[in-house]
Amino acid sequence: MQNEASPLYIVGIAGSLRKASYNRALLAAARQRAPTGVQIEIHTLDPIPLYNQDIENQGIPTAVQKLRDAIYAADAVLLVTPEYNSGIPGVLKNTLDWLSRPPKPHPFDGRPVGIMGTTPGGFGTRAAQYQLRQVLVPLNAYVMAQPMMLVPGAGDKFDEEQTLTDEKTLAFLDRYLTSFSAWTRHFPA
Amino acid sequence: MQNEASPLYIVGIAGSLRKASYNRALLAAARQRAPTGVQIEIHTLDPIPLYNQDIENQGIPTAVQKLRDAIYAADAVLLVTPEYNSGIPGVLKNTLDWLSRPPKPHPFDGRPVGIMGTTPGGFGTRAAQYQLRQVLVPLNAYVMAQPMMLVPGAGDKFDEEQTLTDEKTLAFLDRYLTSFSAWTRHFPA
Repeated sequence: MQNEASPLYIVGIAGSLRKASYNRALLAAARQRAPTGVQIEIHTLDPIPLYNQDIENQGIPTAVQKLRDAIYAADAVLLVTPEYNSGIPGVLKNTLDWLSRPPKPHPFDGRPVGIMGTTPGGFGTRAAQYQLRQVLVPLNAYVMAQPMMLVPGAGDKFDEEQTLTDEKTLAFLDRYLTSFSAWTRHFPA
Repeated sequence: MQNEASPLYIVGIAGSLRKASYNRALLAAARQRAPTGVQIEIHTLDPIPLYNQDIENQGIPTAVQKLRDAIYAADAVLLVTPEYNSGIPGVLKNTLDWLSRPPKPHPFDGRPVGIMGTTPGGFGTRAAQYQLRQVLVPLNAYVMAQPMMLVPGAGDKFDEEQTLTDEKTLAFLDRYLTSFSAWTRHFPA
């Protein structure tokens, strides 16, 4: 077990490619609000190709390998998911599919994971988060149970520059990040 | 974090009331095969009444309170679930519903949990286990991800006295219990 005050390095991934995505904005807010000693490094999924075993057979694509290496080197992963059609976006699932491939151990095996998400509508990615949890079970990720960071009504909580400005949400985000840091510290690096 | 060799006390619950239940038999096998220093105490759900808020308003039933107290005092909980209609039995869900009620914190909050299950058919409670995991998320239970203990084909693996005799399953059970003990030791009592 790491010392309470040990620094943490967390890979942050948002499951949307859209520049003005609320979920990218939520991840950016998390990076900015990270507790002292906790560093969140954001990796975008733009360069990750669509999974194709024929491509894989020619060698793991560089972008996938880079993300693998970053997660291996990290203490934890923070996944920020939109909800499309009551589930996680194919963009995010595609990345998890790549990362689940050999060589073993894949980078989620025994890695602490936190999940957050935001929607313009009223449910804040609740269905997507439960689906994402199910996908992470066979990967043996150590997913924090509570609190769940669900942000409905995104349009009222971010300003025009995609900055999270809602005071209540910011306070909950701080609490979430403190809990997630404590969860991560349950597991030796 | 507890010492690797620290003794563990685990409450074991099977979600079937039937005397000759394969799931009760699987739990009995787990108790018998528990690693050195790990004690599994079996609690049956027979005395837990059907949840009724009118009853609750008159005070928590003795059987529920006893189970609550046992789990509070335990390092972890081992849930052994049958699968009825692709889900967890009402008998088990009823107990979880009781245990989720006030006063807070309820006994699953921050408690390591392991899940096992067996079916006569071919899927070994896979659907029930995912459903059970979902129920345990709002309860903030710390559910181990892997390995999953799924035992299909129960009729061939237990003898007429409900003793688990299948060598491969016994070996996997040993591995499961070792992993679950290590998982439990990630969390201070």
